[in-house]
Amino acid sequence: MIAGKRMLVVSAHAADYVWRAGGTIAKYIKGGADVHLLVISFGGRGESNDLWKQEGATAQSVKDIRKNETLAAAEILGLRHIELWDLQDYPIVIDAALEDRMVRVIRTVAPDIILTHDRNGADILNPDHNEISEFVFRCSVMANSDGVRMEGTKATKQMRLFGFEPHQTELSRFMPGSFIDITDTFGQKEAAMKCFKAQSHLIQYYTDRAFLRGNHARRISGNQAFKFAECFSNVFPVVGEELY
Amino acid sequence: MIAGKRMLVVSAHAADYVWRAGGTIAKYIKGGADVHLLVISFGGRGESNDLWKQEGATAQSVKDIRKNETLAAAEILGLRHIELWDLQDYPIVIDAALEDRMVRVIRTVAPDIILTHDRNGADILNPDHNEISEFVFRCSVMANSDGVRMEGTKATKQMRLFGFEPHQTELSRFMPGSFIDITDTFGQKEAAMKCFKAQSHLIQYYTDRAFLRGNHARRISGNQAFKFAECFSNVFPVVGEELY
Amino acid sequence: MIAGKRMLVVSAHAADYVWRAGGTIAKYIKGGADVHLLVISFGGRGESNDLWKQEGATAQSVKDIRKNETLAAAEILGLRHIELWDLQDYPIVIDAALEDRMVRVIRTVAPDIILTHDRNGADILNPDHNEISEFVFRCSVMANSDGVRMEGTKATKQMRLFGFEPHQTELSRFMPGSFIDITDTFGQKEAAMKCFKAQSHLIQYYTDRAFLRGNHARRISGNQAFKFAECFSNVFPVVGEELY
Amino acid sequence: MIAGKRMLVVSAHAADYVWRAGGTIAKYIKGGADVHLLVISFGGRGESNDLWKQEGATAQSVKDIRKNETLAAAEILGLRHIELWDLQDYPIVIDAALEDRMVRVIRTVAPDIILTHDRNGADILNPDHNEISEFVFRCSVMANSDGVRMEGTKATKQMRLFGFEPHQTELSRFMPGSFIDITDTFGQKEAAMKCFKAQSHLIQYYTDRAFLRGNHARRISGNQAFKFAECFSNVFPVVGEELY
Amino acid sequence: MIAGKRMLVVSAHAADYVWRAGGTIAKYIKGGADVHLLVISFGGRGESNDLWKQEGATAQSVKDIRKNETLAAAEILGLRHIELWDLQDYPIVIDAALEDRMVRVIRTVAPDIILTHDRNGADILNPDHNEISEFVFRCSVMANSDGVRMEGTKATKQMRLFGFEPHQTELSRFMPGSFIDITDTFGQKEAAMKCFKAQSHLIQYYTDRAFLRGNHARRISGNQAFKFAECFSNVFPVVGEELY
Amino acid sequence: MIAGKRMLVVSAHAADYVWRAGGTIAKYIKGGADVHLLVISFGGRGESNDLWKQEGATAQSVKDIRKNETLAAAEILGLRHIELWDLQDYPIVIDAALEDRMVRVIRTVAPDIILTHDRNGADILNPDHNEISEFVFRCSVMANSDGVRMEGTKATKQMRLFGFEPHQTELSRFMPGSFIDITDTFGQKEAAMKCFKAQSHLIQYYTDRAFLRGNHARRISGNQAFKFAECFSNVFPVVGEELY
Repeated sequence: MIAGKRMLVVSAHAADYVWRAGGTIAKYIKGGADVHLLVISFGGRGESNDLWKQEGATAQSVKDIRKNETLAAAEILGLRHIELWDLQDYPIVIDAALEDRMVRVIRTVAPDIILTHDRNGADILNPDHNEISEFVFRCSVMANSDGVRMEGTKATKQMRLFGFEPHQTELSRFMPGSFIDITDTFGQKEAAMKCFKAQSHLIQYYTDRAFLRGNHARRISGNQAFKFAECFSNVFPVVGEELY
Repeated sequence: MIAGKRMLVVSAHAADYVWRAGGTIAKYIKGGADVHLLVISFGGRGESNDLWKQEGATAQSVKDIRKNETLAAAEILGLRHIELWDLQDYPIVIDAALEDRMVRVIRTVAPDIILTHDRNGADILNPDHNEISEFVFRCSVMANSDGVRMEGTKATKQMRLFGFEPHQTELSRFMPGSFIDITDTFGQKEAAMKCFKAQSHLIQYYTDRAFLRGNHARRISGNQAFKFAECFSNVFPVVGEELY
Repeated sequence: MIAGKRMLVVSAHAADYVWRAGGTIAKYIKGGADVHLLVISFGGRGESNDLWKQEGATAQSVKDIRKNETLAAAEILGLRHIELWDLQDYPIVIDAALEDRMVRVIRTVAPDIILTHDRNGADILNPDHNEISEFVFRCSVMANSDGVRMEGTKATKQMRLFGFEPHQTELSRFMPGSFIDITDTFGQKEAAMKCFKAQSHLIQYYTDRAFLRGNHARRISGNQAFKFAECFSNVFPVVGEELY
Repeated sequence: MIAGKRMLVVSAHAADYVWRAGGTIAKYIKGGADVHLLVISFGGRGESNDLWKQEGATAQSVKDIRKNETLAAAEILGLRHIELWDLQDYPIVIDAALEDRMVRVIRTVAPDIILTHDRNGADILNPDHNEISEFVFRCSVMANSDGVRMEGTKATKQMRLFGFEPHQTELSRFMPGSFIDITDTFGQKEAAMKCFKAQSHLIQYYTDRAFLRGNHARRISGNQAFKFAECFSNVFPVVGEELY
Repeated sequence: MIAGKRMLVVSAHAADYVWRAGGTIAKYIKGGADVHLLVISFGGRGESNDLWKQEGATAQSVKDIRKNETLAAAEILGLRHIELWDLQDYPIVIDAALEDRMVRVIRTVAPDIILTHDRNGADILNPDHNEISEFVFRCSVMANSDGVRMEGTKATKQMRLFGFEPHQTELSRFMPGSFIDITDTFGQKEAAMKCFKAQSHLIQYYTDRAFLRGNHARRISGNQAFKFAECFSNVFPVVGEELY
Repeated sequence: MIAGKRMLVVSAHAADYVWRAGGTIAKYIKGGADVHLLVISFGGRGESNDLWKQEGATAQSVKDIRKNETLAAAEILGLRHIELWDLQDYPIVIDAALEDRMVRVIRTVAPDIILTHDRNGADILNPDHNEISEFVFRCSVMANSDGVRMEGTKATKQMRLFGFEPHQTELSRFMPGSFIDITDTFGQKEAAMKCFKAQSHLIQYYTDRAFLRGNHARRISGNQAFKFAECFSNVFPVVGEELY
C-alpha cells in the first residue's frame, strides 16, 4: 500500500534524485504517499561541468541555475516538501552539527522509507555519494534510538532503506534488490530530467537505463506490462507476511 | 496476497522442508495458497544417522520410518499435494530423464513461487543440497521456455525462486533476502518437527533459530509483533509496484 | 595491433555473439584479424520463444530460420570462418567426444584471443552459457598442454580469454574488464542484429546497452570520441609492457 | 596454553563483551590468563532504550545503571582489570588524543590477544561497532611500531586479533574463524547477562545463539562434548606449528 | 599435538603435494603423525610438458618418469603409506565407482586431517584441481555418514580439511587460513622438489614462495623464528578450547 | 606507447614506491615517459623499526636517513621530479588544506596515469596505505572537475589509476589487474632497493616477489621472455580499441 506511506529522499546533489528515483518518487506521490526531498548540495563544483563552460559562469550563477532546475524538476514530480541544504560539494564535509540536523530531519519526517545513495557498494566515481550514504545511514540509527535525546523530537521506528543505482553499477558493486515499475510515471521523469538543460547526454542515458531496467523487470518477473523501471538496492532484507 | 498463489516446494531429503520452511508452508496453506511438495529422497544414507543406530536397521526399515515421518509432518502442515521420488541420496545423481520429470512437475504445478535449497551460496556441509538447488533452477529455466516441447504440457511463466537457509549460514555464504513471520504457524512447525523422532537435537536447533530470526525480523522492520520467523534468500530481486 | 591477430569466438546459441560481441568482431575483421566463429547450438529450444509462436513451427523449421539468421548476421559482420555444431540446447550436454572436438578446434585456429561466455560470474538466467563457459575454458587448458596428444595437432600457446557480458550483469556478478570502442562498426552490429527478426525487443535492448557502455567508456577513459562500446570481462589480468 | 596468556578485550558499549565474549573471557580467566577489559562507552544513548522508558530517566541515571550492571557482570566473569572510558556513544567520536590513549593501553597491557568488534565485515546496524573496530586495529598497528615513541612505553609485539560476532551476522558479512567451547563457563555467562536487567530479550537471544554455535562447533569438529560455544572472526590466519 | 594424528593427503597429480605441502607433510611425519598419500594421476598429459619435449617420449615413458620421481620425493619426505591411482588427467573424470573407492580410502585411513586442493576458491588455471577438491570433499561427507553402508568399513568422525595453495593465489581467490612453519623441514622439501628434474623453474618458484610465506608468518604472528612456511586455506573454522 | 606519457606516483612512505613499482617507474622513464614522484611521509614512525634500533636514534636522525635513502633510490630509478611532503605517519592525517594541495599537484602534473596504493582492497596491515589510497582517489575526482576552481590551474582529463600490490595480497583482497614486465629494469630496482640499508629482509622479499610475478606473467600470457614483473590492480577497466 503506497497510500499513506511516508518517504524521505536524500539526494547528495541537485539532480541525483531525478536520474535515479524520479519515476518512483512520482509514483509514490501519485499513489498517495507523503514524500519529502532533502538535497544536500547543488553540486556546483562536482556536477555542473557543462554550466561552467558557459561564458562568465560564477559559483553563484551556477548555483542559481541548479537551484531553479531542481525546483522545476521537483514540481514536475509532484514534490511539495523540499529542503535544500546548499552545502559545498566535492567534497561534502559532514560534522557533528550536520548530524544533529539530519537526525532532526529524520525524526520530523518519521519516514517509513528512506531512499538515498547505495550503502552496499561504493560509487566508484563519486566520493560524495558514499559520504552521504554513510551519513544518512548513521543518522537513521541515531534517530531510531530513544537515548539520543533531542528537544522537540522523539525516536523514530526502524524504517526501510533503499539505495540509488550508481552511474556505473558493476564497478560500484551495486546489487539490484528491488525493481519498481515506473511505466505510468516515466513521462514525468522524462520531463523532470529535461529541466537539467546542460546535461542532455544524461537524459538519454537514464532514458535508456529505464528501458533496460524495464526489460530486466519483465524478464525476472514474467510480467509483460512493465515497460520502464528503476532499480534500487535493499539495505535490509524484506520482512513481512509474504514472499514478494 | 497469499490466497490463490501456487507454490512448489522441492526438498532434497525427507525433513529439509520442515526445518527450513515448515512455518511458511503452513502459513501459505492457511492463507489459501495451493502448495505442492516434492521430496527427492528419503535421506536414508545421509540424514538418518540416528536411525541407523537402532538395532537391526536396514535400508528399507530406515526408509519406511522416514517416509512415515515425512507424511505425518506434511499432514500437520496441511500439505495435500505430495510427491515422493525416493531417489538414493549421498549422492543424489541427476540424469536427463530426471530433468524431464522435473520439468513436467514444474509445468504441471505451474507455480508462482518455488522454494528450494539456496542457489546463491553453497551449503558447506551438504553436497546433495547444492545438487538439488542447481537441478531445480536449471529445470525451471527449461520449463519456462516455449521451445522445450513436452507432450501434454505448456511453458510456464517465469516464477519466483527463494532459497532455504542452510544449516551453517555464514560458512555457506547464505544471504538473507526475505524474512517471513511465522508467529501464527510456529505451533504447527513445532509439531511437524516432532514427527522426526530421532532428531531431537535438530528440533531444538530450529526452534531456537526461529526465535533468533524473529528477533532479526523485529529489529530490521521495527514491527514488534514478529515472534518467530523463517529466512530465505531471494534468487531474484523483488519486482513490482512498491518498495517492500 | 589488431592486424594479424587470431580470434576464436564461441557462442552457445545462434545469436549470442551478435548481441554481445558483434561490434568487436566486425572491428577485428575490419582491422585485419582472422576471426573464427563457432556456434554450439541454434538455440531452438531455449532462445526461440518468438519463433515457436508462429503457426506450424517445428523443431526443424525453427532451426532453419535460426540458421539462416545467424549466417546472414555473420556475413554482415564480415565473418568467413564459421562452424555450426548444431547441438541441442536447454540443456547443452557436453561429453568427452565434444571435449576432443573442441580441443581440436582450438588447436586448429590457434587463437591469440578467445571470446566466449563469462567465466568469472555465472549467468543467473541461462545455464547453457555457464556450461559453455566452463567447457571452453577447460578445453583451452587441454589444448595448451603438450601432453594432450592428438593426431595432427600441436599444443597451442596460452591465449587470452575474455567473457561476454550476460543479459543481467549485476545479478550474474559480471565485472567489466575491458571496454571496446565500437563506434565505427556499430552500424554493422545493428544490421546484424536485425537479421534476428523475431527478437526486436533485444535489438533495442542491445542498442541501448551499446550506448550506455559508450557513456561508461567515455567517463572512465576521458576519451570523448567513444560513442558505442561493448564490454567484456578479463579472465586473466593484462600482461605486457605497458599500463593500459 | 591459556595459562599466562595476556588478553585485552575492547567493548564499544557496556554490555557488548558479555553478549559476544562472556564465556570466552570467563574461560580464559579460569584457565589462568590475564584478561583486561576496556569499555569505551556506557552506551547510554544507543544501547539503553529500555532504560529510557523508565519514568524520570536522565543521562546520568541511565549511565549509573549501566555502570553498575557492567561492573556486576565483569565481576561474575572474574574480571579484575577494568577500565571504563565513559565516552559518549551514538556516535563515538575518536580523535588524536584518544588514539594516544589507546596506544598506551595496548602497550601497558601488552596483550597476546585482542578481542574486539569484527573488522572483516561491517556491523549493518551499529556504526559505533565499526568505528571501534577500526580504532582498535589502527592503534594496535601503532602500538607495535618502534617509531611511535611514547614516554614510559615500549613497542608491543604483533598480537592476535579476533572479532566479536555482530547481532546479525550474515547481513554484516561476518565470517566465523574460531569457535570456542564455553560449555564450562556458560553458567557464568548466563549470570553475567542477567545483570543487564532491562534487556531480557537479548539474554534469551544470546543463550539461544550459544546453543546454536555449540551445535555448529560439534558438527564441524566431530567433538560431541561441545554444548555451548562462542564464535569469532580471525583477523589474521592461524600461524604456527600445527593445523588446528 | 602432532604425534598420533592421522593425515590423508590427496594430490591430483604426481608433484602437487610436494610443491604445496611437502614441508608440512615432512613435519607431521617427523612429529609422529601417521600420514597417508593418495596420488590420483601421474599428470602425464597436463603437468609433464617438459618431459614431452624429450625425444621419443611416450605416454608410458612419461608416466614411468613421473612415477619414479614421486616415489623418490615421497621417500625423502618420509612417507610410507602411498597409494597411486594412475588415472588419466586433463581431464580427470570421476564416476560412481571412484567415489566408492575414495570413501573406502577415507574410512580406512580414518584421518583427523585431510589436505587436498583448495575448496574455497577455484584454481584459475587447473580444472583438475577443482575436480579433485570437490571429489574429496563430497566423499568425506559420505564417509562420515552412518547411512552410507560399505562392507568392511565404518563411518568416520568429522575430520578437518585444509586446502593447498594454488599456483596463482589471488586469481584463484585463495584465502590463507593457516600458515605452518616449515623451517625445520624445508631442507627435505627442497630435496623432494629436486626429484622432479624437468621442472627446475617450479623448484625456484616454490622455494621463493616458502620464503615469502615465512615472511608473512613472521609478520602476522610476531614470531621471528619462522623462516619458511606453507600456507593453507581452512575449509572449516578452528574449533576448540583456545584462540590460536 | 610509453613515450610522452605523464605519470604521477604517490607513495605513502619513503620506500613504498621502490618495493612496489620501482621497475615500472624505471621502465617508464627509460621509455620516455615523464614521471613525477610524490612521497607523503618519510615513514619515520611506522616504517623505520630497524633504524630506531640504532643507538641514539631520534626522530630527526631517522628522518634524515630515510630522506637520503629515498633520494638515492629515486636517482637510480631515473626520477627527476620529486616532491617530499614530510608529513607525520602512523597515522597520516589528511585535512582540507592537504586536499587542496593534492588537487594542485594533480592538476600541475596532469598525469595520464596515477600509481598509488590499492583502492580495490584494503591493506590489512597498514592503515596509512588505505588513507592515502582514498585521499589520492578523492582528489583525482576533484582535480577532474571543472567546478572545482583553483587559481592558476585547470581541470584535468580523467586519468588512469593503478594500485600498488600490498605486502600480504590475499589478506588485503588485492586482485591483479596488470602485470608489467620489468626484466629490463630489474637491475635498477634491485639497486634502488639496496639504498634502504636497514631493510635487507624486504630487499630479498621483493626480489623473490618480482621473480614469482614474472612466473605468473609468463604463465598467463604465454610469453616466455618475461623474467621479472610487477603487479598492479586496475582501478578502472581497460578502455580502448583493442583487447589486451
